[in-house]
Amino acid sequence: MAFTFQINNSLKFRHDEALLAKSEANRPEIIKKEVKPVRLVDICEDPAWLGGWAPADNGKDISSLAEYGCKRNDKLILDFGDHMVGTFRIHIDQTGSPMDAPLFLRLKFAEMPEELKAESRDYDGWLSRSWIQEEFVHLDELPADLVLPRRYSFRYVELTVIDTSPKWQAVFSDPVVTTETSADYSSFTPLVLDDPDLQKIYDVGVKTLADCMQDVFEDGPKRDRRLWLGDLRLQALANYATFDRTDLVKRCLYLFAAMTTEDGKISANVFTKPKNVPDDTFLFEYSLFFISTLYDLQKVHPDMDLVRELYPVAKGQMDITLKMIDENGKLLTDENYPVFVDWSNDFNKDTAGQAEVIYVLKQFIELAKLVGDTDIADYESSLIKISAYAREQLFNKERNLFVTTGDEYNIGSQVWMALAHVMSDEENKKIMESTIRELFPVKNIATPYMYHHIVEALFEAGLSEEAVKLMKDYWGKMISLGADTYWEAFDPDKPGYSPYGSPIVNSYCHAWSCTPVYLIKKYLME
Amino acid sequence: MAFTFQINNSLKFRHDEALLAKSEANRPEIIKKEVKPVRLVDICEDPAWLGGWAPADNGKDISSLAEYGCKRNDKLILDFGDHMVGTFRIHIDQTGSPMDAPLFLRLKFAEMPEELKAESRDYDGWLSRSWIQEEFVHLDELPADLVLPRRYSFRYVELTVIDTSPKWQAVFSDPVVTTETSADYSSFTPLVLDDPDLQKIYDVGVKTLADCMQDVFEDGPKRDRRLWLGDLRLQALANYATFDRTDLVKRCLYLFAAMTTEDGKISANVFTKPKNVPDDTFLFEYSLFFISTLYDLQKVHPDMDLVRELYPVAKGQMDITLKMIDENGKLLTDENYPVFVDWSNDFNKDTAGQAEVIYVLKQFIELAKLVGDTDIADYESSLIKISAYAREQLFNKERNLFVTTGDEYNIGSQVWMALAHVMSDEENKKIMESTIRELFPVKNIATPYMYHHIVEALFEAGLSEEAVKLMKDYWGKMISLGADTYWEAFDPDKPGYSPYGSPIVNSYCHAWSCTPVYLIKKYLME
Repeated sequence: MAFTFQINNSLKFRHDEALLAKSEANRPEIIKKEVKPVRLVDICEDPAWLGGWAPADNGKDISSLAEYGCKRNDKLILDFGDHMVGTFRIHIDQTGSPMDAPLFLRLKFAEMPEELKAESRDYDGWLSRSWIQEEFVHLDELPADLVLPRRYSFRYVELTVIDTSPKWQAVFSDPVVTTETSADYSSFTPLVLDDPDLQKIYDVGVKTLADCMQDVFEDGPKRDRRLWLGDLRLQALANYATFDRTDLVKRCLYLFAAMTTEDGKISANVFTKPKNVPDDTFLFEYSLFFISTLYDLQKVHPDMDLVRELYPVAKGQMDITLKMIDENGKLLTDENYPVFVDWSNDFNKDTAGQAEVIYVLKQFIELAKLVGDTDIADYESSLIKISAYAREQLFNKERNLFVTTGDEYNIGSQVWMALAHVMSDEENKKIMESTIRELFPVKNIATPYMYHHIVEALFEAGLSEEAVKLMKDYWGKMISLGADTYWEAFDPDKPGYSPYGSPIVNSYCHAWSCTPVYLIKKYLME
Repeated sequence: MAFTFQINNSLKFRHDEALLAKSEANRPEIIKKEVKPVRLVDICEDPAWLGGWAPADNGKDISSLAEYGCKRNDKLILDFGDHMVGTFRIHIDQTGSPMDAPLFLRLKFAEMPEELKAESRDYDGWLSRSWIQEEFVHLDELPADLVLPRRYSFRYVELTVIDTSPKWQAVFSDPVVTTETSADYSSFTPLVLDDPDLQKIYDVGVKTLADCMQDVFEDGPKRDRRLWLGDLRLQALANYATFDRTDLVKRCLYLFAAMTTEDGKISANVFTKPKNVPDDTFLFEYSLFFISTLYDLQKVHPDMDLVRELYPVAKGQMDITLKMIDENGKLLTDENYPVFVDWSNDFNKDTAGQAEVIYVLKQFIELAKLVGDTDIADYESSLIKISAYAREQLFNKERNLFVTTGDEYNIGSQVWMALAHVMSDEENKKIMESTIRELFPVKNIATPYMYHHIVEALFEAGLSEEAVKLMKDYWGKMISLGADTYWEAFDPDKPGYSPYGSPIVNSYCHAWSCTPVYLIKKYLME
């Protein structure tokens, strides 16, 4: 994958204090709960699991934890039985002769077993190795309560005694996780589905969403732990279908609206700790999805004050985009403001980008009507022109597929044109049937984000059966590989693929993958 | 070196609460002072320094520290200009794009430059690797004040940014050490010596002692950071010659006296944090040196209440020892209660041990007289018998040296017999002259502890010139190799020798090496 970090740190940003105050007023309470591990495991070879490593009972009894004295190089792996996001503490004492040296302990937190098999020192990827969830601790005096200050995302905690001394052993007791989430399970009733596979897919999606619901909608509680606008759009939809915390969506919209560049552009993501800072990374449709997120919120929980308040920022995004449309209605993409669509850069994204403009412009015109924008006719004529370009210049009638630069027919183009309803419903269905025939099985797509849009396009085109099949093949496959929550990246043809060169920095709980909870409710239950 | 850890953890110990309360009442105040680094250095090859590594200005200005942005793998080495014992804090911020990953930082604390060249992962010694002064820290949010909770012993602090992200750099400012010692420099006037070499040897000794004066007399502030009785004896003597904190000596004597085995034997060392615990390690003469330490204290600061209070414990040690003397007056050594003399086990220690009994028994009889012990005649007759055995059975008139088991003439035997004044002063002098002739230059002795006794034996035998020469050759050599404080182990013939297989766990500030301050004052100034 050819990823380039964007560095635009000379850019100036607005900080609208009034909007930031509103983001603060909508900051959710973090709900905490104490959880204890359910068992002690070893990580054993098992080809059925991701990376070939599965947890297995190791014969030791978790209730007798304090009886296992640990000397140099001894390990214990605690299994908490499900994915956790929270802080960790454990009581440590010693046995044997007096403690004649410090205890040197490593704690490794892993979402998936294979992470425990990866050696941190071997990591050589382009992402920061600081994401490896691993701590090294010296304790000069025991007994002690080791209370780690950081929050981790994990199911397994590996305790490795790097050293004691030949004269004594470390003993552990009372490991506890204090979980953190702003998802309130007490006011949420999950769907009950007839299909057990779909039920499982739904349940894991709910857990994925909940574990990413923190002080903001985080993209992943392990990594990158921050608010991305493209992810927010999907999280908000999944949220309405489940925990329905409107305050959290509003908080996130206010954050993006409050901190645009001086010329009004919204960052792809923002940081909120220790203070609110917009990132200097920009993605074309992420900025646009501010409009979609506001539009989706208004549909579920109408709030005209909010729409009026944020409309100018929404309009700013659309105006920036419309400047990128040429006189024929074609989107002129800009590599410094890249169209994302998917991690992969192996396909051309111009036509998908064109479709995304249409998708969002339709939503924007609805918002413009609500606020009575007098410029509305201009936007409507832009929509006509951009849609016409798509239909007339980008659609190949013989192949019944959208083309993109050169002679490329890729799945991204079809999916986004379907979602944008550029064609009639009947044509849409035929295009998605062509897509299935010619471009399925899906190849070289590694993000649940893109799979979400493929599945949704199938549903929108009336191809529910194919949509459900793809959902089961994709999200169901993650479950069969051991997922407790869905992953940031997964290519079913290459389960071991990591965009970062090592599972150790992969995020195995990533919000943009939680959308089956939305898809199932919207397309199968309503 | 063949070192065996003693494990006797089924032994029962007394805890005399009244004596422990007195040890607590004599706990010294820890004096703290803030110190800032003097420069930024690189560690460069230099054959003149220990291990071939010396600090060298690196061209960066410490006053501009906050201007040096550090990315993945960048290093900064702070030089505090002298040996420090204390806690460390530093302010950390970031520059560049927003902080899109945690900071992962390694901090390495080194007494000598060569420690910074040793890779921790390569350490494979028998001592716990937990002694390596190295911390790994993740910071999720910057700016932050990193305040490390542990105490370190060092002159150099190496900051290695293990990772940031490609988008930003870490910047450091305001590094501060808060030093800790119970040595009060404000009420101490160092000796002023005519000989600049001796002045330097004296000054470094003072610093070594001060940095080991903590809540107890520690053997080494880096390692093992605890109270050893053999070391206490020498520290107390050096203390009377310098800072003269009687309370600290009393505290240490009370600690040993309060926690003997049920049959009265004193451990070689005790732990005081988090609570008072005697170690299950026993060394023959270390137990005996309780008597010597009490005797020396009484000579400098007479306190009959203290002598009367601790005399029974002192007597216990002598009685245990006298049971190891056979009917001829010969000490029967016991490998489970080893005679120490020196780290090296390459020479036989029976005769040295015999001499140590005589050395201590003479002091004990003085104490017995003070308290009016009615058993005194028994001890006096023991002294006669044990001394006679030494003179008659262990002294070879032809070689004018003491022999030990078999036909071994080693330096330890001569030195301890000289210190015990088994022979007349005139004979003593001749024996030490034979020692110089036959057994010098000293070979295969790696502890300043043993070198102290050699130098003191030369002084006691009236060979001041040779004593000063050896002091300069040995302690002066450490200084020329870069010592800011004296080391736990040093063999001038093998400067790189470590009893532990790596400099990384060596203690380069070790109390038993501080005694030039005592030797110079006692033998050259009085």
